Amino acid sequence: MYTNDFYSPEVQGPYEKIGIGRLELENGGVIENCELAVATRGTLNKKKDNAVLLPTWFTGTHKTWIEHYIGSGHTLDPEKYFIVIVNQIGNGLSTSPHNTGDPSITGPKFPFVSTGDDVTAQERLLREHFGITELFAIVGIAMGGLQGYEWAVRYPQRVHRLASIAAGPHNTPHDHLFTEVLIEQITSDPGFSGGEYASHEDVAEGLKRHAHIWAVLGLSTEWWRWEDWRDLGVNSREEAVTEFLEPAFTALDPNSVVTMARKWQLSDVTRHTGGDLAAALGGITARVFVLPINFDMFVTPMDCAEETKLIPRGQLHVIRDEAGHFALYNISRTYMEQIDRNLRELFASR
Amino acid sequence: MYTNDFYSPEVQGPYEKIGIGRLELENGGVIENCELAVATRGTLNKKKDNAVLLPTWFTGTHKTWIEHYIGSGHTLDPEKYFIVIVNQIGNGLSTSPHNTGDPSITGPKFPFVSTGDDVTAQERLLREHFGITELFAIVGIAMGGLQGYEWAVRYPQRVHRLASIAAGPHNTPHDHLFTEVLIEQITSDPGFSGGEYASHEDVAEGLKRHAHIWAVLGLSTEWWRWEDWRDLGVNSREEAVTEFLEPAFTALDPNSVVTMARKWQLSDVTRHTGGDLAAALGGITARVFVLPINFDMFVTPMDCAEETKLIPRGQLHVIRDEAGHFALYNISRTYMEQIDRNLRELFASR
Repeated sequence: MYTNDFYSPEVQGPYEKIGIGRLELENGGVIENCELAVATRGTLNKKKDNAVLLPTWFTGTHKTWIEHYIGSGHTLDPEKYFIVIVNQIGNGLSTSPHNTGDPSITGPKFPFVSTGDDVTAQERLLREHFGITELFAIVGIAMGGLQGYEWAVRYPQRVHRLASIAAGPHNTPHDHLFTEVLIEQITSDPGFSGGEYASHEDVAEGLKRHAHIWAVLGLSTEWWRWEDWRDLGVNSREEAVTEFLEPAFTALDPNSVVTMARKWQLSDVTRHTGGDLAAALGGITARVFVLPINFDMFVTPMDCAEETKLIPRGQLHVIRDEAGHFALYNISRTYMEQIDRNLRELFASR
Repeated sequence: MYTNDFYSPEVQGPYEKIGIGRLELENGGVIENCELAVATRGTLNKKKDNAVLLPTWFTGTHKTWIEHYIGSGHTLDPEKYFIVIVNQIGNGLSTSPHNTGDPSITGPKFPFVSTGDDVTAQERLLREHFGITELFAIVGIAMGGLQGYEWAVRYPQRVHRLASIAAGPHNTPHDHLFTEVLIEQITSDPGFSGGEYASHEDVAEGLKRHAHIWAVLGLSTEWWRWEDWRDLGVNSREEAVTEFLEPAFTALDPNSVVTMARKWQLSDVTRHTGGDLAAALGGITARVFVLPINFDMFVTPMDCAEETKLIPRGQLHVIRDEAGHFALYNISRTYMEQIDRNLRELFASR
């Protein structure tokens, strides 16, 4: 256990740590006292049918959801919905390698946590802590979309709507290779020391290289070409790297990043159906809006189109944004309007 | 100087080392005795107007050209054309960090060589050694395309046709970031030792990580998804990495790879026109076929389309191939027919 201020409420905004008890992990191992970092907005109605779950993406936290996606001007309106944002296990806020009080799973001893484990934990949290058994909707982005699909496959009667932004239902082979590259940037840094570093600053070089991978794959050739980094308030390509991308990753706990990347790498709803994607997706009863971003370099609309065909009530709506995958940070002027419009249509449907 | 059998004629096929004398480099420094590794096919006609120049791409050598692109069934037919393949400086065959006899520029002391320096060297080679002053055509792929554009901008009267496969005329900002990532995989390996390694095998881990970057950006999500690696004769995604990609890079000399990556990173025809791309491309008199590959993740057809508009006699023809950038290795059944057809049309034009 060591302290990393990045994960504090002062930086991330307020959140509550809610214990859900012992979590047995589906691939072995256990988290004895699993705590989820949760932020909510709005009020659960008497029928308990207005709950919207927002999981988090790779390295994401509740902060971006609150700052960019939620509010009276958005479809995610706290006046109408009870919005529950659950930070994923291992993201540095929920139980994670650097913050667990259990020395048997601290640092590199942290067990492999799957997307399925997150959903198990979220289901228990919602049911036991909030008394919620049905979800009006799940809105998942990237790794959060993987969690949303896991929910929709496992609990088809309890998830009524799913929006999956920049996420397919299934990890692609390319994702597997990509996440390995992300992991390698960190683990190859001599300062990482097999996860036994004294401070994340010892791994600054590896985290910077990790950021450089995102510069190439998280945005798009066109975003860089048209100097869209001006939207970030920086003055050059170099500043976009050193002022925006590198700080976003050098602040993180390396073991946390590796934990999430491994989870992403091996996320797979087809393990419920013996590897049969059509069977897994065919069992989804929720209305599903699949919302890839046209310039996303690794979650491609083409992949998503193939998968959407397998979802009985699935619809593909392509978001147009040169920022590619990182459009999810709401860095373009035309992104959020498209998201709000799609969520509005989804939420109005039955 | 150390020996790396990968660059031997036994592995690469025969080539001639031709000295072109002292090469002063445009960014400072000098190669006192610059040698170009050259392979030719066919015969120069009396009018000396049937010469076709084939430069090489990043990590490429004359071998792939000869094995896949040249022959009686191809447009690049030695019965018709005098085909001159010139390995780029620093590629391990032409003068390079590991093979130069000059101790002042060996290993990490090798100077920065630009695409412009290659073209200066090639122009001298063709004129002084072969008596060629005009080129029927240049066919360039990837970094070879950058060399082709450099020729067409600098010697507009002497290049009659240019085919640029998987290459724009200008490095994109994304290329700059991408090449930095490629370089970092190698230079961050402790075995690299600032380029003072005893053997390239000391840098095997860094070269493998370099290969893993290519797995993600050199092919495409769809190539991996549809298991197109079966075309390579391997049986799994893992084998595609360990049997095809990793060996292609671990054989290389790390200083050579870094030399080429830096050259690629800073290649820029607009330095002739004070940064004005329209002026640089507007001065090209050659007929130019711009041939991006539709699934290429970093040389995008969209980028190429913008640039083609600036070339007076430029035409954009998109090659369809799921293999993306690495289609250039002729690993798909439908690639070469498209190349031959486009080159045939270009060569038949005036």
